[in-house]
Amino acid sequence: MPFSPKEFAMQTWIRFQTGDGEVGFGRIEGDHVIEYDGPGHARPQPTGATLPREGLRLLSPCEPGKIVALWNNFHALARKLEKPVPAHPLFLIKPASSLAGPGDAILRPRSYSGKVVYEGELGIVIGRRCRNVAPDDAAAHIFGYTVVNDVTAGELIAQDPSFPQWCRAKGFDTFGCLGPVIVTELDWRAASVVTRLDGAQRQNYPLSDLIFSPEQQVSLISQDLTLMPGDVIACGTSVGAGSMKDGAVVEVTIEGIGSLVNHMRG
Amino acid sequence: MPFSPKEFAMQTWIRFQTGDGEVGFGRIEGDHVIEYDGPGHARPQPTGATLPREGLRLLSPCEPGKIVALWNNFHALARKLEKPVPAHPLFLIKPASSLAGPGDAILRPRSYSGKVVYEGELGIVIGRRCRNVAPDDAAAHIFGYTVVNDVTAGELIAQDPSFPQWCRAKGFDTFGCLGPVIVTELDWRAASVVTRLDGAQRQNYPLSDLIFSPEQQVSLISQDLTLMPGDVIACGTSVGAGSMKDGAVVEVTIEGIGSLVNHMRG
Repeated sequence: MPFSPKEFAMQTWIRFQTGDGEVGFGRIEGDHVIEYDGPGHARPQPTGATLPREGLRLLSPCEPGKIVALWNNFHALARKLEKPVPAHPLFLIKPASSLAGPGDAILRPRSYSGKVVYEGELGIVIGRRCRNVAPDDAAAHIFGYTVVNDVTAGELIAQDPSFPQWCRAKGFDTFGCLGPVIVTELDWRAASVVTRLDGAQRQNYPLSDLIFSPEQQVSLISQDLTLMPGDVIACGTSVGAGSMKDGAVVEVTIEGIGSLVNHMRG
Repeated sequence: MPFSPKEFAMQTWIRFQTGDGEVGFGRIEGDHVIEYDGPGHARPQPTGATLPREGLRLLSPCEPGKIVALWNNFHALARKLEKPVPAHPLFLIKPASSLAGPGDAILRPRSYSGKVVYEGELGIVIGRRCRNVAPDDAAAHIFGYTVVNDVTAGELIAQDPSFPQWCRAKGFDTFGCLGPVIVTELDWRAASVVTRLDGAQRQNYPLSDLIFSPEQQVSLISQDLTLMPGDVIACGTSVGAGSMKDGAVVEVTIEGIGSLVNHMRG
């Protein structure tokens, strides 16, 4: 791997709520959390407080203004779908209103009784404003990585024959699950995404199969639209995505980051 | 028209930049602006300052977290495209990063040499958080109306045969033009959208031809995703959208709101 200058060594960042209901940011050190006055990507200062990790409720580890969600970004899935490898990242936008954090319920939309699909994915958390970022500069604009469940109302996408409803199908409230933490360094080429539904493994695919690497995604997407600190690129899923029944527990794990657990509520 | 309770009588709100570079909000009264400490939808208080209207540079009149942009929302366009009237609003999301204000340049994306299309539209500015809003309550959640140019890199939409790139084609920086003002009351049923390209009229369609009214849009979309104060729903365009050459000046006018003027920069 080429050397990529980083301001931080490997760190793990969380956003949390205390038992008193206060929301904070922090960096994990062992079984404690060093509190900061803002999210990691924002050059925060330590507040001086240190909290025991136990008893903190984890929130989505960042608050993206937008989630740029890729489709068809793994060779294995492209082969299975018999789709060509795209020339540019194919994406849609999940709005900030779709955000959910670790442990949160995924809410079935009132208007929709069809299949709700889990898609375990790697999430890139942007650290610096990105506009027309050169490929070699992309790594320096990535704050870190998180786990994404890119929840999708699968049957809506093609419900209207003339307009594929990607944004609606993936944009419902609680359909953008992020967490549990952000790690600032991840050897993603060596990591896999594992999704378990009610404990049974449903996805297990290597990130080395990515069509566009995180750095390529940041560079190419930043030619289209400005990415802001805290924005997330969901790298797309690979084979094994499937539907969740109401009440199901879904767990997406990337070794080195952790497990994002959510449940479906009908 | 049914009585719709409003906290304000007809008001005109702007966001502006002074000659000193300060950004502010205000309500127009004749040739002056009453300054407020926040945008109109946020229950702002007057700062006590009154500024002459002349010399203020108008900015986009709100700062939406997202622009929900409808497709196929006019009967005349549906007939022309030979598409059925949709059962639910068909939409994509333009990100906050696409925002441009009155007078701003529309920037041709570096990566794209194809047609850039103007689409003159009515914009609904959300005034209160909307989630599962009943149709009869929708009007009370609308702060007001603005003019939208929903700029589109037309040839990108179908460039990839397997994934229509609506978000990319409409999500480029500067492709979400809003302005010049927000009016809190508009008899939209009596108004038309007129688009002029280098002075020549290209669109002139009545808003009474809408498939989903503003109230229906707010109610139905709020079943899908939470709309926040300052968010904008772009109601979709009708017949007459077309492409702009680099250097062209495009003016979208809705009587009762005003004219949104932008220019293409290659």
